[in-house]
Amino acid sequence: MAQINEHYLKLAGAYLFPEIARRVSAYIAEHPASADKIIRCGIGDVSEPLPGAVIDAMHRAVDEMAGRETFRGYGPPTGYPFLRRAIAAGDFADHGLDISDEEIFISDGSKTDCGAVLDILGAGNRIGITDPVYPVYVDSNVMAGRTGPARDDGSYEGIVYLPCTADNGFVPDIPEPPGEKLDVIYLCYPNNPTGGMISRAQLQAWVDYALSNRAIIIYDVAYQYYVRQEGAPRSIYEIEGARRCAMEFHSFSKNGGFTGVRCGYTVCPKELAGTTGRGEKVPLHGLWTRRWSTKANSVGYVIQRAAEALFSEAGRAQVRRLVDHYLENARLLGEGCDAIGLTAYGGADSPYVWVACPDGLSSWQMFDRMLDEAKVVVTPGVGFGRCGEGYVRISAFNTRDNVLEVVKRLHALTARSA
Amino acid sequence: MAQINEHYLKLAGAYLFPEIARRVSAYIAEHPASADKIIRCGIGDVSEPLPGAVIDAMHRAVDEMAGRETFRGYGPPTGYPFLRRAIAAGDFADHGLDISDEEIFISDGSKTDCGAVLDILGAGNRIGITDPVYPVYVDSNVMAGRTGPARDDGSYEGIVYLPCTADNGFVPDIPEPPGEKLDVIYLCYPNNPTGGMISRAQLQAWVDYALSNRAIIIYDVAYQYYVRQEGAPRSIYEIEGARRCAMEFHSFSKNGGFTGVRCGYTVCPKELAGTTGRGEKVPLHGLWTRRWSTKANSVGYVIQRAAEALFSEAGRAQVRRLVDHYLENARLLGEGCDAIGLTAYGGADSPYVWVACPDGLSSWQMFDRMLDEAKVVVTPGVGFGRCGEGYVRISAFNTRDNVLEVVKRLHALTARSA
Repeated sequence: MAQINEHYLKLAGAYLFPEIARRVSAYIAEHPASADKIIRCGIGDVSEPLPGAVIDAMHRAVDEMAGRETFRGYGPPTGYPFLRRAIAAGDFADHGLDISDEEIFISDGSKTDCGAVLDILGAGNRIGITDPVYPVYVDSNVMAGRTGPARDDGSYEGIVYLPCTADNGFVPDIPEPPGEKLDVIYLCYPNNPTGGMISRAQLQAWVDYALSNRAIIIYDVAYQYYVRQEGAPRSIYEIEGARRCAMEFHSFSKNGGFTGVRCGYTVCPKELAGTTGRGEKVPLHGLWTRRWSTKANSVGYVIQRAAEALFSEAGRAQVRRLVDHYLENARLLGEGCDAIGLTAYGGADSPYVWVACPDGLSSWQMFDRMLDEAKVVVTPGVGFGRCGEGYVRISAFNTRDNVLEVVKRLHALTARSA
Repeated sequence: MAQINEHYLKLAGAYLFPEIARRVSAYIAEHPASADKIIRCGIGDVSEPLPGAVIDAMHRAVDEMAGRETFRGYGPPTGYPFLRRAIAAGDFADHGLDISDEEIFISDGSKTDCGAVLDILGAGNRIGITDPVYPVYVDSNVMAGRTGPARDDGSYEGIVYLPCTADNGFVPDIPEPPGEKLDVIYLCYPNNPTGGMISRAQLQAWVDYALSNRAIIIYDVAYQYYVRQEGAPRSIYEIEGARRCAMEFHSFSKNGGFTGVRCGYTVCPKELAGTTGRGEKVPLHGLWTRRWSTKANSVGYVIQRAAEALFSEAGRAQVRRLVDHYLENARLLGEGCDAIGLTAYGGADSPYVWVACPDGLSSWQMFDRMLDEAKVVVTPGVGFGRCGEGYVRISAFNTRDNVLEVVKRLHALTARSA
């Protein structure tokens, strides 16, 4: 009898974004007249088209695939050298950071990388995850059997949740001895969902913690292009010692608008090692290479040329304008919340505004109210974890017109509830 | 201390194709003059450019990504309806098979699917794998901890190897009671690497075995477009009962030439179920949907439009011509082997010719000899498993000129060794 992976049965409810989509569809079914009015600020999906440099590069690459002399079949399993080189230069060397081409692993995006990294890590690790958090970190650990069952509040036994609240500025406190020693820690800054940022000193403290415990930090910088604050870390490798304790996860979704293109990458420095049960050190670089060689054939040639174009001179300028557009949206949304007396965080160095629900509303109550009264879809904070209860996330990934309309409707919302 | 997944340390040597690439590079380094003469018939990578219908569809889709009104961000996690519909029609309904759109799961290729399917299956299953076999089936099980350590001959404890030899026509015998009961069985026809084909009666016997043991068959039809034999099964769903015991893995690599595009799909029928430890039935369809929703964001829009174009009228005709080209190559290679007295299998209904090594040579000895004397890269059969020892696989994925040149050099090889 073929047995299933029963860890899947622990998963508490559907994955957040399909659940939101289901609720919105149900609402539209009941209120068909509202269908055209709904503005989606829920899922962090970009609205602007791909940069021109990317479009040109894709057309050129498609033409190459049409001729026998220039056709490309299977590529190198961890990505084409041209792309790894462009990334090492554009995202690291140009910022004074020492990451070599061979330390860069091309993938079809961060969601894939989140699941894949658990392949190379042992089952007995104690996992620390910020709360609230991108749900994939938690769910992929549940599916891999790295947790106990779900509790009533949707959290899982076995995971160490690291609260990120307004009180600690959305940066988790370092566990103090004799607290639990963490082996793998997920951090994401600029933070999804809170829009919070970490300081260099705070990140150094986490790196020091990881080094002293031989722990590994999985550092998600999907939003690094949104960092505009002087001195704030864009990469964990700006921090002394990080090459020995951190992998970094990058996405082209939020800077290049690649949500529908599918390309990202991870950094795995050669010094980074885990241990066997007997305490022997094993470099992760070899395991990670093996993982990608065996379980994937990398990303299509046309897509890798598209990603390379983000690092061309034209591409960089276009990316800058795209990010500026979404940052200005975030600023407008944050200002709109302030104007009606909502307490809002984030929205600078980040495309997300993290709004405290008024009147003691829960996250899903606020979600329902904004959908019903303002026809605006947001993401309920509790969908990101217990500490997200009482918040909603508003995404700035939208057209300017929609953002201005949302700001206007926020006013209407207050008026009606007054 | 962060622990690694120690199952990776069981892996015996590098993944086959990188190892071949390494040996060829080493040979060229020693014999630089031979670099230009080498013809690669090792890895099953296509040589012909993408079909015109695909090129046109990709250009159109790239243009859509350039405009705000037509831009596509995140797609549905299991694939766009347009592609699932085209597949359900073109690969199933048109052949009288009943597979619905929702039973089709788009992915970036079969290698990814092979690793991913283990996510939803339990750790205690008894795995049956044909020998020789596509190495990814074995290695992904090793990495997931579903095997014991490697033996000296490269096989793994815990896997039940199903010998495929000239004696059984490269179709494994059904285990007889009181033999070991298998829970998960990997089958691939047309077969990689042997080029062998399975009859309808043989496949029915495996389906019956699976049904009576509540086992699951993972049926790989990457080469289904190469089936030209009248009455031979193109899909396991032609077999009575298969919807209750089989997933089917499809690739666009070998028909559409998508090795550098990256798209494929799996079929998971709604009736297919595994069991929990307590014997409860759980449909795999829900688990598989959850796996893709949580761990990936599907395949890029441009790529899905490329795959859809394979099912257009022009696309079908172009695919037919591509497959005809490789089948004719295979016929020529098989004939060339026959002409010099080598015993060769496959080469009909398949792009692979499976050649028995002459003079008692081992697979790697024959590999070295063909590289040194004929400057032809083949794949050593033992790289696919113990039962592949004494064979090499010649791939027909090449230009006609190269194939004719290989046939000529085969003669030279004999002459020199005579």
